[in-house]
Order: sequence, then C-alpha cells, then structure tokens
Amino acid sequence: MISKGITVFAPATIGNAGSGFDVIGIAIDKPGDIVVASRSKQPGLHFSLRVSSREVPPDLSNVAAHVAQLMLDEFKPGFGIDLTLHKKMPVGSGLGSSAASSVAAVVAVNALLPKPLKRVDLLRFALEGERLASGSIHADNAAPSLLGGAQLVRSYTPLDVVALPVRNTILWVVIHPHLVVRTEDARSVLPATVPMQSAIRQWGNVGGLVAGLARGDASLVGRSTEDVVAEPVRAKLVSGFHEVRDAALEAGAFGCTLSGSGPAMFAVASSLQSAKKIAAAMKKTFARVANAKADAFISRINMRGATIIRS
Amino acid sequence: MISKGITVFAPATIGNAGSGFDVIGIAIDKPGDIVVASRSKQPGLHFSLRVSSREVPPDLSNVAAHVAQLMLDEFKPGFGIDLTLHKKMPVGSGLGSSAASSVAAVVAVNALLPKPLKRVDLLRFALEGERLASGSIHADNAAPSLLGGAQLVRSYTPLDVVALPVRNTILWVVIHPHLVVRTEDARSVLPATVPMQSAIRQWGNVGGLVAGLARGDASLVGRSTEDVVAEPVRAKLVSGFHEVRDAALEAGAFGCTLSGSGPAMFAVASSLQSAKKIAAAMKKTFARVANAKADAFISRINMRGATIIRS
Repeated sequence: MISKGITVFAPATIGNAGSGFDVIGIAIDKPGDIVVASRSKQPGLHFSLRVSSREVPPDLSNVAAHVAQLMLDEFKPGFGIDLTLHKKMPVGSGLGSSAASSVAAVVAVNALLPKPLKRVDLLRFALEGERLASGSIHADNAAPSLLGGAQLVRSYTPLDVVALPVRNTILWVVIHPHLVVRTEDARSVLPATVPMQSAIRQWGNVGGLVAGLARGDASLVGRSTEDVVAEPVRAKLVSGFHEVRDAALEAGAFGCTLSGSGPAMFAVASSLQSAKKIAAAMKKTFARVANAKADAFISRINMRGATIIRS
Repeated sequence: MISKGITVFAPATIGNAGSGFDVIGIAIDKPGDIVVASRSKQPGLHFSLRVSSREVPPDLSNVAAHVAQLMLDEFKPGFGIDLTLHKKMPVGSGLGSSAASSVAAVVAVNALLPKPLKRVDLLRFALEGERLASGSIHADNAAPSLLGGAQLVRSYTPLDVVALPVRNTILWVVIHPHLVVRTEDARSVLPATVPMQSAIRQWGNVGGLVAGLARGDASLVGRSTEDVVAEPVRAKLVSGFHEVRDAALEAGAFGCTLSGSGPAMFAVASSLQSAKKIAAAMKKTFARVANAKADAFISRINMRGATIIRS
C-alpha cells in the first residue's frame, strides 16, 4: 500500500485578465507552488510546510491541508497521507497563490487515491481552499491552475467552467512587486453596483478578450484588458500603478493592468523581445516610483495547468 | 454619368444576442430591407418609399433618406440620386429594422459614387440613421447588417467593432409576433445601475457567447444567451414571453430570449429539424397566449451582410 511520493507543480494564474473580473483566469508557466505527497501507514493527514522566502500567513498555507483533509474525509482511502507544501509563491500577490497551493494539494492527493478522479472533478475541492482563503468561492484562479489554459467561469450557480479557445501566440509579462495587498482589502473597495454604461463597456471588453484569445490577437487582447469596474478602485492600493502602466505601454505593451487584485500587474506583448523590454521598464518604474523590488515572469499561456513532475 | 440602378438587400439582425446587450449583433438571412438607387441628372436626393404591408412611421422610414443625404453632402458627387426604399421589414420588431434601412441606403449610394468607400468605412453613416431612429448611437444592429457575421462593438468611444470568430453551424430561430414594442419604451425601462453580481453574471455569459460562437457550440451559446440585465424588464413588454420561451426550451432550444428590444424572440438550435419544431412551438404559443400571429425565420449566421443583388 505504500507508494512512492508524488510531486505536483501548480502554476500561478492571471485572475480577471483585466476586464474578466471574477470570470476569466489564465495559467502561466511560473511561479507556482509544489506539493509532495505520499501514502502513510498512519491514518489521517500529516501536513508540513516549507517556505522558500518570505513569511506565509498560517491561514493561507493551510488551504493545502484543508483541501487534502476534505478529500481524505470523502474518499476514506484506508491509508494516511504525508503532504508537504513547498510554498514558492508570494502570498497576497494577485497571482493566485492560494489557488496554486490548493490545486497542487488536490492533484497530489488524487494521484494517491486507488481510483483517481478526472481532473475537472477536482475543481470543487480546490474551490474549498479558495473559500477558506477568501471567505467566498472564486474559481478564476483555481480553474486555470488546475486545468491549464484560459478558463471562463461562465456561471457560479450552477458552476459552469468553460475552457476558452486559445491561439497561444501572445506573451504575458507578469511583474510582482514586493508590496502587499490583502485580497480582503481589494474586495472591500469594490462597489456594490455598476453604472449601466460601465457595465456595457466591461462586457464589450470581455467579448474582445475572448475573441482576441481565440485569434491570438495581441492588439485586441491588449485593448480588451481595459477594466472600468475593479481597476479604478484597486489601482489606488498599488503604489506606482499608473506610472508602471504608462512605462509598459510606452515600451510597447498592447495593454497593462492588475493581475487579480494586485499588486502584481501584467502586460500583453506579441514578441519575446518586446516582452523583455516591457518587463525591464515595469521593474525599473516600480523601483523608481514605489521603491519596490519586483520579479518578472514572461510566459505564454500554460495549457497544461497543474502537472505531476515526479511520481 | 447616368448609371443603371443598384439594388441592395440589407439583412435583419439579432441585436444583443441575449447577454451581449448593446455590444453584440448577429446578421441573419431574412427578413431584410431593399433599396434601389440610381444616379440622376437632377442634383440632390429624390427619395421614395414603397411599403409592403403595414404602415411605417415617417421618422423610421426616413433613416434611409437621412443617411443618403449625409453621404451626398459629404462627397458631393456632381449628380443627384434617386433612391427608393422598399420597406420589407416590420418596424419596432427588435430585428434591426432601422439599421437595415440605413445600411441598404448607404451601400447603394456608395456603389454609385465615383470612388466607393470600403464597406467598414460606411458604418459611421449607417450609425447616423440609428441616431435619427433612436436618439443615440447603437451599432449592434448596423454593424452586422452592414458587415455580416457576428459583430462585437467592443467600444463606442472610440468606436471599435470586432468581427467575432464564427463556426457557422448553429441554427437561429427568429419569431416575430405581430405586437408592437417601441424601442424608446424598451430603453426607458432599463435601470441606470446594475448590481455587481448581475454584472459579473452578464459578462460571464458574454464570454460564453463569444467562445460558443467561435466553437459553433449550440449548447454553450444557448445557455450564454441568458440576459439578467435587460430581459427581466423588457420581457414584461412582450405579451406571452415566458410561455413562448418555455415552449421553445421544451421543443429542444438551447436558449431563447428577446431579439434586440423585442417583441421578436430568437432561439438556438443545432439542427434544421429541431429548429422547425421550435419555430412551430413558438408560433403556436404566441397565438394561444397573446392572440398574436407570428412570422418565423430560420437561418444560420449571414456572413455576407448587405449585398448588391442587382447592378
């Protein structure tokens, strides 16, 4: 009954992708979280945490333990699980850190089960991790981290997740400044209602985003990332936002806004050369304006999502 | 300088296509309006109107004259134009009647010009017809009638119209009951703000609509036509709406809602056999519940848009 360990990588995600607030998320190649899990003779879950760099709030690291425990409770596999989360991703980054931890855990636990579930059927467990992390269910990070690609949460009631058609030519420049924005704060600033004209503009942009992804049209995707609903209030929480965006656009980006609730930002490019130039300009501007170091990641869309990297 | 006449057909359109309120429109094969135009030695515009069946309010029939006059004023071609609108389409139907008249006129006048414009550059003239008809600029009927296909008005300021990717497999069942809803009334019932959760649901559906059109996925398109913003208030203006929708769904439709501001309704089907069954059920229900006769049109997406049928 004792298997070798399973090692799973679950990728970061660009939540919202600009206009697709709460409904669209895109998986990228890195950063991401890693979970190592193995069967144990001792029943129950034995969780440990390895943190690479900065401190992780206990409520966020525990999402992996939480979802693993839920799966053990439901499937009662007749063995215990040793599970270690290697927390590689920055927390409160806007890159779907809690989703990556949850997803890595559910994919690892699933691989150890006698009758593993299909990948898509794991989503409901990963979403419980999101509920623990943020108090409500949001699938726009968990779905792409689990399933890869660009995922649309068309509906939450009932849950209807659609893999968007993608022509994977666009380069996504993701910059994570070392600033903290708590997702709870980023949610609390959101208005309860949207003026009709803003709502129409937003869903016009969502349509452009989906069409642009299908075509691999960096210009259309870039201008469709415009977010008139969440960005105007959330950008205020990110020091240097407007200067960094201006720098990205000046360096050739087709669009630039917050990733998820920030402070990470993403920009849209059509070539690697352009992407590198945009990344350098954004990092330099975060340093100059916000006195913040920043990490840069350049990626196409990660079409695989969470991956078993060793078994 | 005297040319033979030009005859142009401009098709009806399904405005909004459900969730895409004010931003998405789809051209269908019929009904449509016809304009016959020819050069005249007498300067200026000589307009006449031929009405097939029911009375046409003067303010609506005049959109064709209005846009033709605008083009004459701008291009000063050195000849006059005789222009006859054969008003075939029902007015106040929700099928883009005023847009079809405007589009037929601008395409016909354009064909008579010494240096005709590209099709897409005619949109601004057609939109002036929409402004005359409704008091504001709406492109979700004029763009698909002019350009064909499924068109997204991503932005009005600046105007950015995107031809959506289409896999043209879906059948669109359009039912026009002989009931009148004035577009002005249908606009006046709309709320000024949208609850955030409704707005999110709407743009989730817009994303599904665009993805479903690209895939030719009738099920995804059907469920994405759900409109939580305009339909709840506009449906009240259409006698029998809920019963007719129920009948469509029961007959196998993947989705069913208002076309534009109604009273026309459309339903989504995946086969001609199913489409005919749905059309019959909807007509029968309009007769039973609203005592209204209705015309049925079954069509794939009309990818050509306005067409010169004789020159």
